[in-house]
Amino acid sequence: MKIAVLGTGMVGQALAGRLAGLGHEVTVGTRDAAATMARTEPDGMGNPPYRDWAAAHPAVTLAPFAQAAADAELIVNATSGDVSIAALEAAGRDNLAGKILLDIANPLDFSQGFPPSLFVKDTDSLGEQIQATFPELKVVKSLNTMNAHLMVDPAQLASGAHSVFVSGSDAEAKKTVTGLLESFGHTDVIDLGDISTARSTEMLLPIWLRLYGALGTPTFQFKIVR
Amino acid sequence: MKIAVLGTGMVGQALAGRLAGLGHEVTVGTRDAAATMARTEPDGMGNPPYRDWAAAHPAVTLAPFAQAAADAELIVNATSGDVSIAALEAAGRDNLAGKILLDIANPLDFSQGFPPSLFVKDTDSLGEQIQATFPELKVVKSLNTMNAHLMVDPAQLASGAHSVFVSGSDAEAKKTVTGLLESFGHTDVIDLGDISTARSTEMLLPIWLRLYGALGTPTFQFKIVR
Repeated sequence: MKIAVLGTGMVGQALAGRLAGLGHEVTVGTRDAAATMARTEPDGMGNPPYRDWAAAHPAVTLAPFAQAAADAELIVNATSGDVSIAALEAAGRDNLAGKILLDIANPLDFSQGFPPSLFVKDTDSLGEQIQATFPELKVVKSLNTMNAHLMVDPAQLASGAHSVFVSGSDAEAKKTVTGLLESFGHTDVIDLGDISTARSTEMLLPIWLRLYGALGTPTFQFKIVR
Repeated sequence: MKIAVLGTGMVGQALAGRLAGLGHEVTVGTRDAAATMARTEPDGMGNPPYRDWAAAHPAVTLAPFAQAAADAELIVNATSGDVSIAALEAAGRDNLAGKILLDIANPLDFSQGFPPSLFVKDTDSLGEQIQATFPELKVVKSLNTMNAHLMVDPAQLASGAHSVFVSGSDAEAKKTVTGLLESFGHTDVIDLGDISTARSTEMLLPIWLRLYGALGTPTFQFKIVR
């Protein structure tokens, strides 16, 4: 499949690398490709600059948001939640029309320090805001409840015996995303319902962050035992 | 231990019955004991009236909030979140002084229908509000992330292989509550930190409610795989 991954950070790199490894044709989208490639310093979280990752992944191309989205059949939103709508605006509505958006972003607000709060609460969600702003997209929220490495390689923890959620109002789009998740190695994909259920997974972030602190590692996962 | 369980609903009954079965001296606290015993109809969720439960549990006494709290060494808050602070006020500050409060209540707001939203969001929590309102209590938030039957008998699901969280600012109080949880059969008690971490478990309610809808059963649990 032709896939655009919007966002050059840790989540975008993890998704783009894994999707390319599975044989998809992947373009990473960014605001300003020259500026992204010019960065030589680690980001605020200590991750290496994109140019280092790109050198190790020659099959993945980098392009401005609009160009990346134009050719894609499926788009991954791996931008920070606070810039997601702006990034999609930059991608251009014509380039989004009729396409699936796998939305991984979380509405984290770091303005008051750590742990961040949420800038959308339980009566709305970033997933719903994106769907409402871009009705031409088929938004499927998923993968936003775990570390980037576990998103794309769940088998590295407990042989993949843990859960991932999907929320979306288009059944076919959820089926396509579920297939992608299974190709990554996810074995327990739980369909929560329409896009309004994205509220509930975005609200997992507070406990994810507290568990990160309590356990001292980001390599943990929610499993729904039933 | 002498334990007061405030609240006569499904959660209060589950806790009181289990604690009495484990040999604790249990008094259930209610606003008006005569009115509670006079009710003959099921509650809004279809649960049998308290008098039926009480008839099957003769070792458990029923008393007004203040009388129940007065003799207790440990108090369980099993009231609805929207009346928890009023119930504790009715119990009387003198009767709370220096005691542990195991707080199970969630800040659910059903005023807009189902699923409920939260009347306290991620920059505060009901657990913190109770601790701030009653500094004489040692508040430990726990058990609020699962069905009442699983709270007190976790082994009925997957032999108890799932997780329960504790949040509180008093280490000794958390140790006492952890001991109680283990006596119920909980095998994975995760200490999230001080009482502010109650925000994160109260915010699990939205996904708990969505999972209840998606799975069609309340008999499921969160397990933190690591």
